[in-house]
Amino acid sequence: MNEAKLNQLLNDVRSGKKPIAHAVRQLKSYAIHDLDFARVDGHRTLRKGFPEVIYCEGKTPAQVAKIAGTIVKHNDNLLATRASQETYRAVKRVLHRAKYHEAARCITVVRKPAPKRTGTVAVLCAGTTDIPVAEEAVVTAEIMGNKVKRYYDVGVAGLHRLMAVNHELLDANVLIVVAGMEGALPSVVGGLVDKPVIAVPSSVGYGASFGGIAALLAMLNSCASGITVVNINNGFGAGYAASLINHLSQS
Amino acid sequence: MNEAKLNQLLNDVRSGKKPIAHAVRQLKSYAIHDLDFARVDGHRTLRKGFPEVIYCEGKTPAQVAKIAGTIVKHNDNLLATRASQETYRAVKRVLHRAKYHEAARCITVVRKPAPKRTGTVAVLCAGTTDIPVAEEAVVTAEIMGNKVKRYYDVGVAGLHRLMAVNHELLDANVLIVVAGMEGALPSVVGGLVDKPVIAVPSSVGYGASFGGIAALLAMLNSCASGITVVNINNGFGAGYAASLINHLSQS
Amino acid sequence: MNEAKLNQLLNDVRSGKKPIAHAVRQLKSYAIHDLDFARVDGHRTLRKGFPEVIYCEGKTPAQVAKIAGTIVKHNDNLLATRASQETYRAVKRVLHRAKYHEAARCITVVRKPAPKRTGTVAVLCAGTTDIPVAEEAVVTAEIMGNKVKRYYDVGVAGLHRLMAVNHELLDANVLIVVAGMEGALPSVVGGLVDKPVIAVPSSVGYGASFGGIAALLAMLNSCASGITVVNINNGFGAGYAASLINHLSQS
Amino acid sequence: MNEAKLNQLLNDVRSGKKPIAHAVRQLKSYAIHDLDFARVDGHRTLRKGFPEVIYCEGKTPAQVAKIAGTIVKHNDNLLATRASQETYRAVKRVLHRAKYHEAARCITVVRKPAPKRTGTVAVLCAGTTDIPVAEEAVVTAEIMGNKVKRYYDVGVAGLHRLMAVNHELLDANVLIVVAGMEGALPSVVGGLVDKPVIAVPSSVGYGASFGGIAALLAMLNSCASGITVVNINNGFGAGYAASLINHLSQS
Amino acid sequence: MNEAKLNQLLNDVRSGKKPIAHAVRQLKSYAIHDLDFARVDGHRTLRKGFPEVIYCEGKTPAQVAKIAGTIVKHNDNLLATRASQETYRAVKRVLHRAKYHEAARCITVVRKPAPKRTGTVAVLCAGTTDIPVAEEAVVTAEIMGNKVKRYYDVGVAGLHRLMAVNHELLDANVLIVVAGMEGALPSVVGGLVDKPVIAVPSSVGYGASFGGIAALLAMLNSCASGITVVNINNGFGAGYAASLINHLSQS
Amino acid sequence: MNEAKLNQLLNDVRSGKKPIAHAVRQLKSYAIHDLDFARVDGHRTLRKGFPEVIYCEGKTPAQVAKIAGTIVKHNDNLLATRASQETYRAVKRVLHRAKYHEAARCITVVRKPAPKRTGTVAVLCAGTTDIPVAEEAVVTAEIMGNKVKRYYDVGVAGLHRLMAVNHELLDANVLIVVAGMEGALPSVVGGLVDKPVIAVPSSVGYGASFGGIAALLAMLNSCASGITVVNINNGFGAGYAASLINHLSQS
Amino acid sequence: MNEAKLNQLLNDVRSGKKPIAHAVRQLKSYAIHDLDFARVDGHRTLRKGFPEVIYCEGKTPAQVAKIAGTIVKHNDNLLATRASQETYRAVKRVLHRAKYHEAARCITVVRKPAPKRTGTVAVLCAGTTDIPVAEEAVVTAEIMGNKVKRYYDVGVAGLHRLMAVNHELLDANVLIVVAGMEGALPSVVGGLVDKPVIAVPSSVGYGASFGGIAALLAMLNSCASGITVVNINNGFGAGYAASLINHLSQS
Amino acid sequence: MNEAKLNQLLNDVRSGKKPIAHAVRQLKSYAIHDLDFARVDGHRTLRKGFPEVIYCEGKTPAQVAKIAGTIVKHNDNLLATRASQETYRAVKRVLHRAKYHEAARCITVVRKPAPKRTGTVAVLCAGTTDIPVAEEAVVTAEIMGNKVKRYYDVGVAGLHRLMAVNHELLDANVLIVVAGMEGALPSVVGGLVDKPVIAVPSSVGYGASFGGIAALLAMLNSCASGITVVNINNGFGAGYAASLINHLSQS
Repeated sequence: MNEAKLNQLLNDVRSGKKPIAHAVRQLKSYAIHDLDFARVDGHRTLRKGFPEVIYCEGKTPAQVAKIAGTIVKHNDNLLATRASQETYRAVKRVLHRAKYHEAARCITVVRKPAPKRTGTVAVLCAGTTDIPVAEEAVVTAEIMGNKVKRYYDVGVAGLHRLMAVNHELLDANVLIVVAGMEGALPSVVGGLVDKPVIAVPSSVGYGASFGGIAALLAMLNSCASGITVVNINNGFGAGYAASLINHLSQS
Repeated sequence: MNEAKLNQLLNDVRSGKKPIAHAVRQLKSYAIHDLDFARVDGHRTLRKGFPEVIYCEGKTPAQVAKIAGTIVKHNDNLLATRASQETYRAVKRVLHRAKYHEAARCITVVRKPAPKRTGTVAVLCAGTTDIPVAEEAVVTAEIMGNKVKRYYDVGVAGLHRLMAVNHELLDANVLIVVAGMEGALPSVVGGLVDKPVIAVPSSVGYGASFGGIAALLAMLNSCASGITVVNINNGFGAGYAASLINHLSQS
Repeated sequence: MNEAKLNQLLNDVRSGKKPIAHAVRQLKSYAIHDLDFARVDGHRTLRKGFPEVIYCEGKTPAQVAKIAGTIVKHNDNLLATRASQETYRAVKRVLHRAKYHEAARCITVVRKPAPKRTGTVAVLCAGTTDIPVAEEAVVTAEIMGNKVKRYYDVGVAGLHRLMAVNHELLDANVLIVVAGMEGALPSVVGGLVDKPVIAVPSSVGYGASFGGIAALLAMLNSCASGITVVNINNGFGAGYAASLINHLSQS
Repeated sequence: MNEAKLNQLLNDVRSGKKPIAHAVRQLKSYAIHDLDFARVDGHRTLRKGFPEVIYCEGKTPAQVAKIAGTIVKHNDNLLATRASQETYRAVKRVLHRAKYHEAARCITVVRKPAPKRTGTVAVLCAGTTDIPVAEEAVVTAEIMGNKVKRYYDVGVAGLHRLMAVNHELLDANVLIVVAGMEGALPSVVGGLVDKPVIAVPSSVGYGASFGGIAALLAMLNSCASGITVVNINNGFGAGYAASLINHLSQS
Repeated sequence: MNEAKLNQLLNDVRSGKKPIAHAVRQLKSYAIHDLDFARVDGHRTLRKGFPEVIYCEGKTPAQVAKIAGTIVKHNDNLLATRASQETYRAVKRVLHRAKYHEAARCITVVRKPAPKRTGTVAVLCAGTTDIPVAEEAVVTAEIMGNKVKRYYDVGVAGLHRLMAVNHELLDANVLIVVAGMEGALPSVVGGLVDKPVIAVPSSVGYGASFGGIAALLAMLNSCASGITVVNINNGFGAGYAASLINHLSQS
Repeated sequence: MNEAKLNQLLNDVRSGKKPIAHAVRQLKSYAIHDLDFARVDGHRTLRKGFPEVIYCEGKTPAQVAKIAGTIVKHNDNLLATRASQETYRAVKRVLHRAKYHEAARCITVVRKPAPKRTGTVAVLCAGTTDIPVAEEAVVTAEIMGNKVKRYYDVGVAGLHRLMAVNHELLDANVLIVVAGMEGALPSVVGGLVDKPVIAVPSSVGYGASFGGIAALLAMLNSCASGITVVNINNGFGAGYAASLINHLSQS
Repeated sequence: MNEAKLNQLLNDVRSGKKPIAHAVRQLKSYAIHDLDFARVDGHRTLRKGFPEVIYCEGKTPAQVAKIAGTIVKHNDNLLATRASQETYRAVKRVLHRAKYHEAARCITVVRKPAPKRTGTVAVLCAGTTDIPVAEEAVVTAEIMGNKVKRYYDVGVAGLHRLMAVNHELLDANVLIVVAGMEGALPSVVGGLVDKPVIAVPSSVGYGASFGGIAALLAMLNSCASGITVVNINNGFGAGYAASLINHLSQS
Repeated sequence: MNEAKLNQLLNDVRSGKKPIAHAVRQLKSYAIHDLDFARVDGHRTLRKGFPEVIYCEGKTPAQVAKIAGTIVKHNDNLLATRASQETYRAVKRVLHRAKYHEAARCITVVRKPAPKRTGTVAVLCAGTTDIPVAEEAVVTAEIMGNKVKRYYDVGVAGLHRLMAVNHELLDANVLIVVAGMEGALPSVVGGLVDKPVIAVPSSVGYGASFGGIAALLAMLNSCASGITVVNINNGFGAGYAASLINHLSQS
């Protein structure tokens, strides 16, 4: 029920066309029923600025394909993360424009690209094995209309690699920094820039890295200011938050 | 060494006033020595937009007072967090304008207020015992020039309290959400707004809350998009990051 | 040894037929031997109201089939949880009425349905990947004679989905709420109803969800009252406890 | 806003007394504003059947006294948990009927006792050091109108103590079982009764009990059916849930 | 070097046959070199009463076969634990008397059975899935010359099963109690007997059993006296310790 | 009810003095009521060979004194562990023979010493700070009638200290080995003797010793055979189990 | 930019050939641009004394082969760790001198062997299953020009095995000690030698060894002095650090 | 027993002065008794190059004073760590030369300074609150004869502070790097130098720093080569190991 319908209902009440008891019941469920319906026709886009994103892990290819089809019916674009090749093929059968981003393990459908923003999202990662997580962030930020620049393999064991791109980093509106192992990169980057840094711990490492816990804890305890953290390997979450942040600069 | 001094030095070289060997040595140490010295006179402000913030825990009142004095000598404003009453008194003796924010346990000195931004930072907390953490965020965001609105005691056990302020929340540029125990509030807030949400787990709770770990994990695993997380009880970190984000809307 | 036999024994003592030393020994083991015998003839049903349930994980299909056969010999109904297709086929060979619930991974045999109760058990889950756990709860509650209503995919990232069924939830006698990731759904549901809520953490999630620990901790720390928790993925335990609770309303 | 007021509003609309635009705004905020106000005047009682309970830890005596005063203004009864003697004195000054339950560390005000139910809540604990937690459950269940029977110091190291009260336990509608250390008591009790058992891990123990984690894990993994668990030392939560369960038998 | 050889050496010194410098060197390495050599010729048997036991996990079948061959060359009997069928076949090729205990996953070679002791080692387990661990204990205790009695599937959810064998348990010299999930069985058994109880946590369970941690913690925190604990699934360790204890009764 | 009373009852039945219905009721509750009563008059002594031991932590001095008085009324000896000086004084007022073992923090009352056994319990500890735990084991083993020999400060960082007493260790029937930090001592001792070793992790250490977890894990994973483990700092448990083991050698 | 180029630049400034604004910019990026260039031409060798080592886990064989080719183009030698047979074959195709160390899972290319040092690195391990970790350390230390001596299977359960090589250990400059399970070996070795000991926890073990955590904690808490620790299974890290230490003796 | 005494004994055997049986016994206990005695007269110095160091935590001032007196009787120098002012006063009474290092919480007695080595040990720390740990390392390294240079407050949030001393760091033989919070400093330092780096996690931080675990894990997972780690806050261990390493350069 939108504002117009609500006016109609109240006019019906005033004119006596609708019995008061009836109106009471209808009004009670107003916010809810309307939102509920919105679930299938695009309310998420309205509320969050982007349609529901499909997290494919634990869903069958058929389930993903069906959900993807429903979303695309009511929205311009689609993003599905943690998708296998098999899931991609199932989606492709339903949505011919579907594209698979192999490194990022993402599926996208872009029918009407989001308007490109002027600000930049910088995506850094410490090592080459962090790239899949970084790419998930890139694909997410790009489909949401952000300009993205990649700075990969700039870990702290060779600081000069980071220093070499220092000036470019200063130009970004928001920085996503992916690192596994000791997760030190966000602290160093956070000390160099005056923009928000989103730290993404990756599960790269072994032994006492505990699947990314070491990096996660390091990032949560960063001595540099302006750093916030997302879940281990959560490239999507970082890309999404970075997009929300970047969009502020143009609102 | 600032840009002006660097120009001066190069002019001295060109004019022959400064021997080249001397200039080489001075330039070599430029970024570094200058930065090092800048540590006390304002380079942090240059690099990060705000002078070094003093984390008082583990420092004696005398140490804090001395550091505070040095910072204020070279900067307009000062923020010291996790400060006891005793530390405040020590600082007060040195800096007469020092003000103590009891709930937030912060000391501030404001000689030249940061220019007020137009966007708003919303600070929410789930329960009354979360207020000290929330207030640390408020004090931090305010001294950095942000307009802050508080929404306290809006935990998910009584959703209507949150719903009552739903429309106001939609107006904020960035939201800080503090919660202990099960840490569910950021997920609910994140589902309602299309702006970045910074989740702050608090150590409020007992037993299996493990001093805030339960809330921290919940926030890292939030099913809502656009949420990033800071350390347990890190109101300062949230306020600082929120300020960096909010400043984007005006740059 | 039942009451009759005990009277007989004491009569034998009084009449001198049974030597006192003999009776002493026999009486000492009384409660125990009797209970032991009950183990094979249905004492569990007597004591708990439902025969032993087979947890199939770690048992061979042959073992399960044999135990299932023994239970059905002495009881009307059977429930086996965490059963693979292969285990089902082994049971099916022995018990032709056996039925496999694929989503729930349960085997049931119902020879004499439990009398249907009037109260309702509501089973909610946050996302589609939580459904297997929810279904295990459903199958358990149903075979124990409860009317069950499902409310799936009502996670807190889109509260309106939950609000849309709010009134129905108020009609349930007991609610089972399954959620992975941040496990926030039980807190929100617990704030809306005045009936017992059984929270089931699921292992859905990745990274810092730690296989369901995040959700488990969140649920244990819920700020809403009336919530109790079972083990991660323990749909059966939730269904069983819900049944015991629901049966109170008719006793 | 209650049903009556809602009817009034709609009558005012029909009669033209209230402009439609005005009504739209008022109706939009209906559920929320009303609920929000209800927070202080009794909506919690309406929704959950008992007014908000004050968790005193982390609140000053003055804060607790103020909240207690507000609650009692709109409700018949009051429960405050984890209250120190000092907090009690602060409340006593405001509410002369306030009573302190020393073992339970609870404050109660009972102006109009809840109607006593016929069913019984049994509260068991393994050792004498578990009694404070058990008493918190007792006080909670009693103020909510339940008949409570205590069975203390019946730990599994001397099973006969439990066996001696076995028959009485079978008469309870719901059982609360508190245990620290290895937390085995709920499993044994759960094997004996056919009613819901709420297990409460206590922090009693040392070394590898890890402040109650050992007991918590044991209870979550209980091999007996019908057991659900609350947070470590959460006597209140157990008493509250037990009350909701027990009330079913009379609804 | 044994006592005889040491006497010889000293005689050689006295007679001047062995230069003092030479003897000094030889004596210095005496305890060590001799023990080192003993590693292959049976010193472990001398020191511990049983030859080295092969833990097969992480060793190739060929490695195990080679070590087994060496041990059997110098000892009467052999025990290899955690052995796969494949490893067994490799050993069988070298040692034709080798026997595979499938449930226990052990290989034994018995050329000269250890003299049977009169005391009994009782081995209990809570459920059928604990049997492999229990059997490893049985095989270990038996090859070391102990009479073993099994009491399987006597978990605390049906106490009468345990009570039925109570009297037999009182006759054992030492009891091994295997349990997974909540690990409560050793506490109950420990409350009934006045003999040492060795508790073995098994990894049976799921979710918050954390691969046996829940049971391990429960056992370490047992409120019953006389209980000691071994590593998760360490049936061998329990059988070995039980044997050392049982042998005391005859020494 | 003891054996004599049971004979009396049956004689009363035979002679017709006691009606059968009456006897049935009495006998039914026999094991239980009698055991229950036995809790205060000595059944624990009957069942376990030693009266209940008081764990003082979490009990008030008054509570301990009262329990101690009751135990001593029905038993020859008393042991109370984790007792403060204050608790001791409270007990001393009631029981004039009470003795305080300061290092062990134990209270004992010995009215009729347990008969001394011939076998020896060896108690070792790695460092001087482990002595309180070791002494708790010593006091426990001694009051239960064991000869104890102490070997303190024999940690593995100076192996020769251990080697110097190697021969004496071989004479012990059972060895208790206390160690904090890396907990390596039991492994080394276990490699030298052919008797059961009870390892006691102590909380001595800092940082990554995690209050004894490091030592506990090391002991559970010992590569030496014949080692079992008790809870962190549980000197009592080790002494008790050692006593049960040592008593086997004379039964 | 080297010193010569810096002099040139300053001369150009003095002579007016280079505008000051231009020089400012160039000087600002000085340290960084130079280091960046070093990344591709051998700067790591310059800075650390050995070219970048490839950690193969998580990289495709093709990626490793490409990186290996680039490194060898600019360096004499190559080390790649955690390499599968498949990765080796990919590297072999590009670098014909590549050699695979199967036990160590390392690939090496040695075109110009590092000059052999006189001091020795001793590599010890507790059991045969620790050998892969030990071998990784050996391969690393050898390619960096160290003489290595192996002492395998010298765990503390049979101390004499260690004592037998005691004198040789005293000759080593630095000792690497690998151990899983309870990780006690480094403590014992550390007590015998006066040289630095690098402890390497291995993941050998089961149950409460938690994949090497037990050994890691033990080593961090070692009561012996002079011990430092690397990550679980990090043979490479130990070999590398040992080499840096050993090289000191000749610098 | 030293070499001379051993020769004497063997001469006595050869000359018949000492009966062979007597010599056998004496020789058997040789290595051990001698070493044992060495414990009090300086064998540790012989074996490790420095007398036993007293760890004061958990020892009474009187105990420390007594041990200190014994050590100084047989050695030139003394080091006691984690000493309170009170402990210092107790030692001072016995040893008038005792000196208290307040920041380091160490007591030293230097009667004959260790010969100064030429190489340098660099001690770095990230923040001012890390200084106590760093100072413990400094005091340890200095008393063992090393030249130490301090570089404090050079954390990664302001890299220029570290860069400013980069050249000096390259001159050190070994570097000790103390850091709390995210523990990133050792990784950055390790990337700049070609000498061994000993990383010391400090417990500085809060929330998810978990008392130093975050820093510990970060350091164990460092992506830079040549880093080894000691226990949390273990400045002594780092100083000791650094000294052993530094001494290599002169041996």
